[in-house]
Amino acid sequence: MKEVNASIITIGDELLIGQTIDTNSAFIGTELNKIGIWVKKRIAIGDVKEDILEALTEQSKTSQVIIITGGLGPTADDITKPALCTYFDSNLILNEEALQNVKDIFTRLNRPIIDRNLKQAEVPHNCTVLINTRGTAPGMWFQKEGVVYISLPGVPHEMKGLIETSVLPKLKESFELPPILHKTLLLAGKGESEMAELLTPFEAALPTHIKLAYLPSYGMIRLRLTGKSDNKAQLEEELTKLFNQLKDMVKEWMVIDEDLPIEQAVSKILKSRGKTLGTAESCTGGKIAHLITTHSGSSQFFIGTVVSYANEVKTDILDVQEDILNAYGAVSEETVSQMAIGAKKVLKTDYVIATSGIMGPEGGTAEKPVGTVWIAIAGPQGVKASKHHFRFDRKRNIDLASVTALNLLRKYLQAEELN
Amino acid sequence: MKEVNASIITIGDELLIGQTIDTNSAFIGTELNKIGIWVKKRIAIGDVKEDILEALTEQSKTSQVIIITGGLGPTADDITKPALCTYFDSNLILNEEALQNVKDIFTRLNRPIIDRNLKQAEVPHNCTVLINTRGTAPGMWFQKEGVVYISLPGVPHEMKGLIETSVLPKLKESFELPPILHKTLLLAGKGESEMAELLTPFEAALPTHIKLAYLPSYGMIRLRLTGKSDNKAQLEEELTKLFNQLKDMVKEWMVIDEDLPIEQAVSKILKSRGKTLGTAESCTGGKIAHLITTHSGSSQFFIGTVVSYANEVKTDILDVQEDILNAYGAVSEETVSQMAIGAKKVLKTDYVIATSGIMGPEGGTAEKPVGTVWIAIAGPQGVKASKHHFRFDRKRNIDLASVTALNLLRKYLQAEELN
Repeated sequence: MKEVNASIITIGDELLIGQTIDTNSAFIGTELNKIGIWVKKRIAIGDVKEDILEALTEQSKTSQVIIITGGLGPTADDITKPALCTYFDSNLILNEEALQNVKDIFTRLNRPIIDRNLKQAEVPHNCTVLINTRGTAPGMWFQKEGVVYISLPGVPHEMKGLIETSVLPKLKESFELPPILHKTLLLAGKGESEMAELLTPFEAALPTHIKLAYLPSYGMIRLRLTGKSDNKAQLEEELTKLFNQLKDMVKEWMVIDEDLPIEQAVSKILKSRGKTLGTAESCTGGKIAHLITTHSGSSQFFIGTVVSYANEVKTDILDVQEDILNAYGAVSEETVSQMAIGAKKVLKTDYVIATSGIMGPEGGTAEKPVGTVWIAIAGPQGVKASKHHFRFDRKRNIDLASVTALNLLRKYLQAEELN
Repeated sequence: MKEVNASIITIGDELLIGQTIDTNSAFIGTELNKIGIWVKKRIAIGDVKEDILEALTEQSKTSQVIIITGGLGPTADDITKPALCTYFDSNLILNEEALQNVKDIFTRLNRPIIDRNLKQAEVPHNCTVLINTRGTAPGMWFQKEGVVYISLPGVPHEMKGLIETSVLPKLKESFELPPILHKTLLLAGKGESEMAELLTPFEAALPTHIKLAYLPSYGMIRLRLTGKSDNKAQLEEELTKLFNQLKDMVKEWMVIDEDLPIEQAVSKILKSRGKTLGTAESCTGGKIAHLITTHSGSSQFFIGTVVSYANEVKTDILDVQEDILNAYGAVSEETVSQMAIGAKKVLKTDYVIATSGIMGPEGGTAEKPVGTVWIAIAGPQGVKASKHHFRFDRKRNIDLASVTALNLLRKYLQAEELN
């Protein structure tokens, strides 16, 4: 089996000083992996010509595929094309197809076209142009001494379009690729080290071409089995068998046996049962609703949300009694339960998730410190409320409270099934 | 001026196959930059000992500071410590302080402690331990031939704690650092290339130690001036003067003259005027509320939200008339305006943002294609509704509709000021 290695080079000062988080590399890594290309290294460098040239030379020693993103914009700090001209001993020529694409885009946007935009249709003469229908900067495909170099714009939406429509098909044509298969499951409620302890014998018995990885994810853990082999059918069979063994060992903590986030695990159950959901969010501030509605098809079961940041919204819309709020406070079992019941009534749903807590950094007291969160699930079996304590910063507390609440709904749904 | 360069090495197969997005590098880049250390390169490699050793050797040639994250967990795929032992010609010894920290954490969590966790307190004998109060893996600080190496856990929350409490103070002690200053502003409503055209003379006239960068951000652009110099007071003065010139040139499109996202630009105005805000979200599904409530202090002005995913929520809670929904549909000027007015009444706020649209990939029609979004702002000056069209995937359409809606509120507030 001949392995094809890839390197990803991302270009831009904004990546180095941290003003932009690099999501491109993760997307490219996932896509290459699916077709059996192994990303060996990822590098981020600034808008410096010498650094680009050095990175290209260096990576060509170990990788057969080099993907470069960024530095193709119309502004003066974009240096990738001059660097490519030097590296491939080339000069810029106007590409008619890319030019037409630029013109089409500006016509569609009804914006004036200027010289700077037309220049984006200039490419090194010895590249194959990959037309970018989502933006003005074309992709470029080079070959040199057995190595394929692909230069793509850094705008994620444009880069993704080019990867899907041009790069992956062309890579599949250019290389004989070995299959790589993954199987992933999501666990909650057990620490990484305890899980590792439990799985040590399983891991030790794995054949050398199959690996187990632990991927912590928002207070949960994903377990991933990865296999490589020339014989895809046999690998699939082998991996399925091991995955079933693994599932059996961790079934107590398993959320879902797919590489899906918790909100999709819950969505699947609700859709299959034809039930509806709403949320009443105080401390999570709409994050749970946002997680659910990010996925297409959520309108099939998701009805709506009341974010009751102010206490008046709790009393006015969710029908929380004022004397309950006064006696127990907003962050209490009594209030969160009334929020859940009130939301179920006003939103007319089968289930409701309700949250009320103190996310910090301000607002904590000795009795109810920052991170204290009450979560209630309301459904046909009544209301179940529980108290939680998250110990992180505001953003992470919101994220953790949201996934914890979704997992509590999953458990509520699971318990119904067992009844 | 002697520059201090840094390299960031992130370790983990999950980064290469794209199952985890690397947010650590951005955080580290930002923090190093603030104290005047320039990140020259970022590298991500797999859990492979040889690759780690090679990266350390390679980066030590150009950087005086090397920060390594990841691979310190309690599971078998974590390989960083053995690699560090080889690189620094060292062997593992038990560190008492780190051991006590592990014990304290497990006592606090009320979880059983196992051998695997105790092993996390073992460190190479020639490192300085950086105690990690947020987790069981300690940070490690090495020095070798004039280069500082810092190994940190990959869990973002733990890494951040160590950077803030240990790494930055120790780096400031160890190096004489030159000042780097940034000034950033946020623009909306003008393309990158048109902006570049406008600013070409300004950019050409900048002194060599001051640079202008264009950072596209969700349909908006951040402009950043960066200056480096030994004389901090003089640099501050020089940069302020140039920044004021820049602000004057772009004032028509300027959202805020700080490196703040749009939701914070809006929050600042509302807080300063003592006004309140609510949202009525259909297609944005709670994203606007989530953006606002991510920031501490939002309860000072943010009252709440009704996510009206189902039409019944629009009629029941937001008082949208059924004949309006039937005649014009949910995605229409009439409906979104009634949503805004209804939410203002039921949430009792000074202002409301309302959204209704089709985010895709399903649900589009010839008349209302995917990406069609109506946005309404309600306030003391009445309701202003406008139609927008976003051309991206679901997630990005939600993000863009949310920031566009926030910017429309900003303009509404700005217009009031001018009246």
